[in-house]
Amino acid sequence: MATTGEATTTNKRVILRDYVTGFPKESDLIFNDTTIDLKIPAGSTTVLLKNLYLSCDPYMRIRMGKPDPSTAALAQAYNPGEPIYAFGVSKVIDSGHPDYTIGELIWGVVGWEEYTTFTPTPNSHHFKIQHTDIPLSYYTGLLGMPGMTAYAGFYEICSAKKGETVFVSAASGAVGQLVGQLAKIMGCYVVGSAGSNEKVDLLKKKFGFDEAFNYKEEPDLDAALKRCFPEGIDIYFENVGGNMLDAVLLNMKIHGRVAVCGMISQYNLENQEGVHNLPTVLYKRIRIQGFVVSDYFHKYSEFLDFVLPYLREGKIAYVEDVVEGLENGPSALIGLFHGKNVGKQLILVARD
Amino acid sequence: MATTGEATTTNKRVILRDYVTGFPKESDLIFNDTTIDLKIPAGSTTVLLKNLYLSCDPYMRIRMGKPDPSTAALAQAYNPGEPIYAFGVSKVIDSGHPDYTIGELIWGVVGWEEYTTFTPTPNSHHFKIQHTDIPLSYYTGLLGMPGMTAYAGFYEICSAKKGETVFVSAASGAVGQLVGQLAKIMGCYVVGSAGSNEKVDLLKKKFGFDEAFNYKEEPDLDAALKRCFPEGIDIYFENVGGNMLDAVLLNMKIHGRVAVCGMISQYNLENQEGVHNLPTVLYKRIRIQGFVVSDYFHKYSEFLDFVLPYLREGKIAYVEDVVEGLENGPSALIGLFHGKNVGKQLILVARD
Repeated sequence: MATTGEATTTNKRVILRDYVTGFPKESDLIFNDTTIDLKIPAGSTTVLLKNLYLSCDPYMRIRMGKPDPSTAALAQAYNPGEPIYAFGVSKVIDSGHPDYTIGELIWGVVGWEEYTTFTPTPNSHHFKIQHTDIPLSYYTGLLGMPGMTAYAGFYEICSAKKGETVFVSAASGAVGQLVGQLAKIMGCYVVGSAGSNEKVDLLKKKFGFDEAFNYKEEPDLDAALKRCFPEGIDIYFENVGGNMLDAVLLNMKIHGRVAVCGMISQYNLENQEGVHNLPTVLYKRIRIQGFVVSDYFHKYSEFLDFVLPYLREGKIAYVEDVVEGLENGPSALIGLFHGKNVGKQLILVARD
Repeated sequence: MATTGEATTTNKRVILRDYVTGFPKESDLIFNDTTIDLKIPAGSTTVLLKNLYLSCDPYMRIRMGKPDPSTAALAQAYNPGEPIYAFGVSKVIDSGHPDYTIGELIWGVVGWEEYTTFTPTPNSHHFKIQHTDIPLSYYTGLLGMPGMTAYAGFYEICSAKKGETVFVSAASGAVGQLVGQLAKIMGCYVVGSAGSNEKVDLLKKKFGFDEAFNYKEEPDLDAALKRCFPEGIDIYFENVGGNMLDAVLLNMKIHGRVAVCGMISQYNLENQEGVHNLPTVLYKRIRIQGFVVSDYFHKYSEFLDFVLPYLREGKIAYVEDVVEGLENGPSALIGLFHGKNVGKQLILVARD
């Protein structure tokens, strides 16, 4: 128990009850109130954060499973009984570290709790927020990890050229919506898939995709792709995996590229779906490349320089799905795996 | 019917009876004797070849199936009722083309027949054989298409570095045996798999692989790979596909690379096996890259400059499985898909 002094307050936290198998449920996450001292003790180099926004991202499902060497390179498992953690936007409310000052805004990894302490290291990815003319919440998405993921994936992995054809799955999500717009900026033909007609409308009307389809209403994904890409696909930005990847492989062009950003359809399966069309990789000389955004965080300021002008000029659109209150966090996170969110899912914990 | 004159002779040919489904059988290939005029008519730019050696290669199975847009980029289907064709070593016995002279030796695509005519074009890959201190048969393998495949795949696709760990499947085949030796030359740790203990011995004793295993005697491929690669695999040179690929994916290191050269285990299946561990591509940031040797034929003379000194100094070993007589060609080709060959499978059609 923390000692309770003048500066002590309640800290509501979201705890992983136990390792998850199959689809996560709200009851896999439980609340626990502790108390926290809002003053950093003298001599400590710790930084105390008040969390304002928390990001809900598909990869968090991987962290909810049992520790697994095959996934550890991407995401270390959460510890049952402890708060889960992810990217968020926070305000420094006390600091014993010379690089952090009270009142500064940062985005980076924090606990799912009202207050988080951390001790900065060269590898703790916490970025100071300099541009506050943009909504702070955007730093959980377009201007944070997912935006940087789209940027690194599209420019570093896809090797796109003007006039190429691009397919993006889970295209209305935090990453997909930006990938589609980056592809349009480059002069590509872009098609997206999503799981509702509302999302499909968003892709076409808001994000400027050339074409879009609701994969849940397509009895034959191969046929849907052939309809949208009669000449085939140069680039597939993969967020889904499984059956969608299988259908895409049949429709890739020679020398096509698949940038593997996520495979949300597989994270909740105890036995992952088999992909049957891999010989196509040989026949068509396809490159499939997995990537992880943390390998590209050194390019974050380059990314901001690129994206901020487009955003300020209204040339890049962005849609968020904001849920208010940490107490509604678990349902927002679980909803992600049922496609409930429309746009980037995040939680408003505190306004200031 | 050809007119029969003084220079006319019989031309025995191997014909595809009908499109093949499942494992090919000897009876899928039939013989047909025609006659051929051994003089090129005046004014023609045709070249007449006498075929000396014919190559049996796994990709030929793809050509035996029904025409399929998904495989066409690698291999156009053979026409039932016509001779099959593949790489071979031949002697020019008459020529109407200024670039070809009687007596010259070439390797390139020819029919499975005793005599073949062709009209040179810039895209007809026929290479003149300059180095005849090496057995001519080697130009169906080590010094021909399979050797060039190993060279392009290993140096262009694998991005290997000294000290990395390399796994080669179907490792005693025409391509695999050279890949393993190229990897050893680079200072890598190399393990190969093959389908008999005789082949495994060859890998270790003749080709200098660090380790090798008989996949047919391993109840658990994952365990076999973990035994050989306790720290994981940096590079997988893929000749097999299916279950082997699935097991390899579990054992790849972060930033591992899979060079897809062939998937022989899948060519005879009506329903290709599902590969279940593709999310590993994301977790471990793996690159899977298919490639086709014809994209690299412009590097053939560079390849020869590289490989010939090693071969002449005995620093690269090479094992062939030679069957004598075109009449034994079908059984040699079909045997390839049952792993009957030990080393590079080829057919001696004529010695001179």
